[in-house]
Amino acid sequence: MSKLDNLLNDLVIANRILANEDVVDAYGHVSVRHPDRADRFFLARSLAPEFITRDDIIEFNLECEPIDAKGKQLYTERPIHGGAYQARPDVMSVIHNHSPGVIPYGITGHKMKPVMHMCATIGHEVPIWDQHQKFGDTDLLVRTMAQGHDLAKKLGKGGTCLMRGHGCVVVGPYLRRTVYTAVYLELNAKLQMQAEAMSKKVRFLTKGEVTEVAKTTSPANVNRAWENWCRKADRPYKE
Amino acid sequence: MSKLDNLLNDLVIANRILANEDVVDAYGHVSVRHPDRADRFFLARSLAPEFITRDDIIEFNLECEPIDAKGKQLYTERPIHGGAYQARPDVMSVIHNHSPGVIPYGITGHKMKPVMHMCATIGHEVPIWDQHQKFGDTDLLVRTMAQGHDLAKKLGKGGTCLMRGHGCVVVGPYLRRTVYTAVYLELNAKLQMQAEAMSKKVRFLTKGEVTEVAKTTSPANVNRAWENWCRKADRPYKE
Amino acid sequence: MSKLDNLLNDLVIANRILANEDVVDAYGHVSVRHPDRADRFFLARSLAPEFITRDDIIEFNLECEPIDAKGKQLYTERPIHGGAYQARPDVMSVIHNHSPGVIPYGITGHKMKPVMHMCATIGHEVPIWDQHQKFGDTDLLVRTMAQGHDLAKKLGKGGTCLMRGHGCVVVGPYLRRTVYTAVYLELNAKLQMQAEAMSKKVRFLTKGEVTEVAKTTSPANVNRAWENWCRKADRPYKE
Amino acid sequence: MSKLDNLLNDLVIANRILANEDVVDAYGHVSVRHPDRADRFFLARSLAPEFITRDDIIEFNLECEPIDAKGKQLYTERPIHGGAYQARPDVMSVIHNHSPGVIPYGITGHKMKPVMHMCATIGHEVPIWDQHQKFGDTDLLVRTMAQGHDLAKKLGKGGTCLMRGHGCVVVGPYLRRTVYTAVYLELNAKLQMQAEAMSKKVRFLTKGEVTEVAKTTSPANVNRAWENWCRKADRPYKE
Repeated sequence: MSKLDNLLNDLVIANRILANEDVVDAYGHVSVRHPDRADRFFLARSLAPEFITRDDIIEFNLECEPIDAKGKQLYTERPIHGGAYQARPDVMSVIHNHSPGVIPYGITGHKMKPVMHMCATIGHEVPIWDQHQKFGDTDLLVRTMAQGHDLAKKLGKGGTCLMRGHGCVVVGPYLRRTVYTAVYLELNAKLQMQAEAMSKKVRFLTKGEVTEVAKTTSPANVNRAWENWCRKADRPYKE
Repeated sequence: MSKLDNLLNDLVIANRILANEDVVDAYGHVSVRHPDRADRFFLARSLAPEFITRDDIIEFNLECEPIDAKGKQLYTERPIHGGAYQARPDVMSVIHNHSPGVIPYGITGHKMKPVMHMCATIGHEVPIWDQHQKFGDTDLLVRTMAQGHDLAKKLGKGGTCLMRGHGCVVVGPYLRRTVYTAVYLELNAKLQMQAEAMSKKVRFLTKGEVTEVAKTTSPANVNRAWENWCRKADRPYKE
Repeated sequence: MSKLDNLLNDLVIANRILANEDVVDAYGHVSVRHPDRADRFFLARSLAPEFITRDDIIEFNLECEPIDAKGKQLYTERPIHGGAYQARPDVMSVIHNHSPGVIPYGITGHKMKPVMHMCATIGHEVPIWDQHQKFGDTDLLVRTMAQGHDLAKKLGKGGTCLMRGHGCVVVGPYLRRTVYTAVYLELNAKLQMQAEAMSKKVRFLTKGEVTEVAKTTSPANVNRAWENWCRKADRPYKE
Repeated sequence: MSKLDNLLNDLVIANRILANEDVVDAYGHVSVRHPDRADRFFLARSLAPEFITRDDIIEFNLECEPIDAKGKQLYTERPIHGGAYQARPDVMSVIHNHSPGVIPYGITGHKMKPVMHMCATIGHEVPIWDQHQKFGDTDLLVRTMAQGHDLAKKLGKGGTCLMRGHGCVVVGPYLRRTVYTAVYLELNAKLQMQAEAMSKKVRFLTKGEVTEVAKTTSPANVNRAWENWCRKADRPYKE
């Protein structure tokens, strides 16, 4: 199989894993940048992530226009992906989800920070984007490239950004690591809540620790989790 | 299949979905208004929702009397449904449930409000009905039409109403959207609790945002969730 | 099948249901009084509830001595059952469990009260027994009839009693209703916690409401839940 | 089968049980000391615990060097095991995990203490080790024997020790009891959180009670849980 085939197979599996790990329900989506054309990315047609198969994957340019829509309905919120790929050449994969733990932080403005080593890839502090600030009363969906660009600006150089009253966006240097960060962002959300309920003096990871963990989070390390999630989601694992 | 057949098949599936998504346990029920006779509605005989099949569905008039009970035991709380259908010609489906998250709001009087876009169909603020106010010490079940009318009055023009020490009622313009609202009412209950434990300054959806989301919550949008719930509940999906 | 056979079949199913509903894990047990001999009761040999079959059921006198132990190891805490049956001729079934929600109440002395209609059979206020008061430092297990009698005294005329640092005991007028109360005691524990975290002004069921619900909680009502639990636990339902 | 064969089979089952009971996810590991050579222990190659089979088990000396690595990648954090076996001749099994409940205690410095009899084997008070104190900014993994020794020192004579921003270590006199303690450490973490949210006056087990429970926690007692966990994890039980 070609490199691209392998990647798109992984994209299908990623959809399934994110559903199985309760990061997405019927909503939420994951994309990858084209490995050979930096001006293209792949994302499924509009469908709950758990059902997505290879045939549902569609190619888009960075303005989020489909190369060939195959007559299918598309996700409304493609600008989340296009905005991030345009702003960040280093980003090779984007996830948008509404996993329950992230919502309380987004609507209170309370800052999320990593509480344990596996959660360090979320970054030292997670920014919060509020669509209302620039766009007023909307249905909160990221429908336009202007909204996508504004979100990407708030994301900055980091790996995660919360969206008030909506969910979050997670980006990464490769697909499996982006999935890894999305899963552990949700875990961090839950654990930080519990710790702060217990005591006002929470010791988060230091900046130095976050940097150290980022350095040692290797593909082999991520694969140990990926293999585990594949099996739980009833999907074959391929190194 | 006729329009009515399709609707009753959907009603059977709705029962199963509500059980599978933990909105109902052995108790709770869902009904639909007759599509061709506004003075009739359909509801199952007394049975845990998960087991209900097409044969268990019974037709009622709006006073909650069965057209043909087929010798079966009926749900005691039919007046929840009849009361809502009488008061609200726009209501085409009614759900009564005791999903755990709604109970704490009903017994504290603490107001539930939407925390995220998918939960906007619960309305800008959820009213609370207390059977004790008008009816004194009862077993809390809505046994009479007088009680059903009183509950419908508190529901007003909205889509949801909590019932103190008991549960809630959810109504909607069509069955699948009513199920959608019932599922996300429970999610909102859990997330609002967590957010308020975290900070006193929660930013709920604005009135304008609630209106915008209501406008864009289309049947296609609802179907993405419905298809997902069908598969999780092992039931065929039909657009 | 004889009345006794039916009852013992139900006892086997009750064990399975309690395990499946997470009321018991490897520990905890359920017994029934002999329907024709008030001085005898039935309880399984020492085994995790989920595995128990008809062959594991052993008959005991009210001093908790086995009529025929069949060479099997017995539960240490039989005096919980014997103590309740001796003190309360109306009690026909006893459950002892450590379901997680009840523990925080037992160790804080915080009173549990019913928050919703389905939980009313736990009684208007649940007493707490502390083995340490009378028996000092022990391994907290109810090993002697003296301990069993002391616990039964604290239980009084009610249906439930918490045991500090240990769990609870639930009694009832027939097996299925006792299981019903044990399941909804755990639900009440969780919901009361959440409500009290939300507001100091919780409206519990009134005494009058508790009495009304107790009156209308009929075997037919309990059977609706029992049938549902049977199916979830993969066991045949018999009315 | 030889004593060693039986033990290694149990080690494989322990990995599976810990995954199934959510004590470990893709990370975390369990080891046993060689029953005939106190200077050796057994631990799997680097792999998510759920997949581990007999072939994945590797023998190590107490400096954590493999006797025969069979060309496989090894867990980085072997010094957690080697450190404990060197410091404590009585320790025959070691578990390292990141079960979610223990994290909030480790990062707040809030002391965990046993809330119920089944949790008494965690010890009267659980110490917390912070790798940062002696080793500064690291990726928080226990990579060197110096770190392993420092952790073992904090563990002291007890059965459990939390690791700030990372997880915990659990040790015991035999494998099944160590698994038992790891499972109930997580339960204790959750219940203590809830109790302390409910009231400032929590009655933990007394020192005398902890001692009494430790005395009566027999292998037969532990086996009741082990048998239950085996069945839930779809593994054969052997007494």
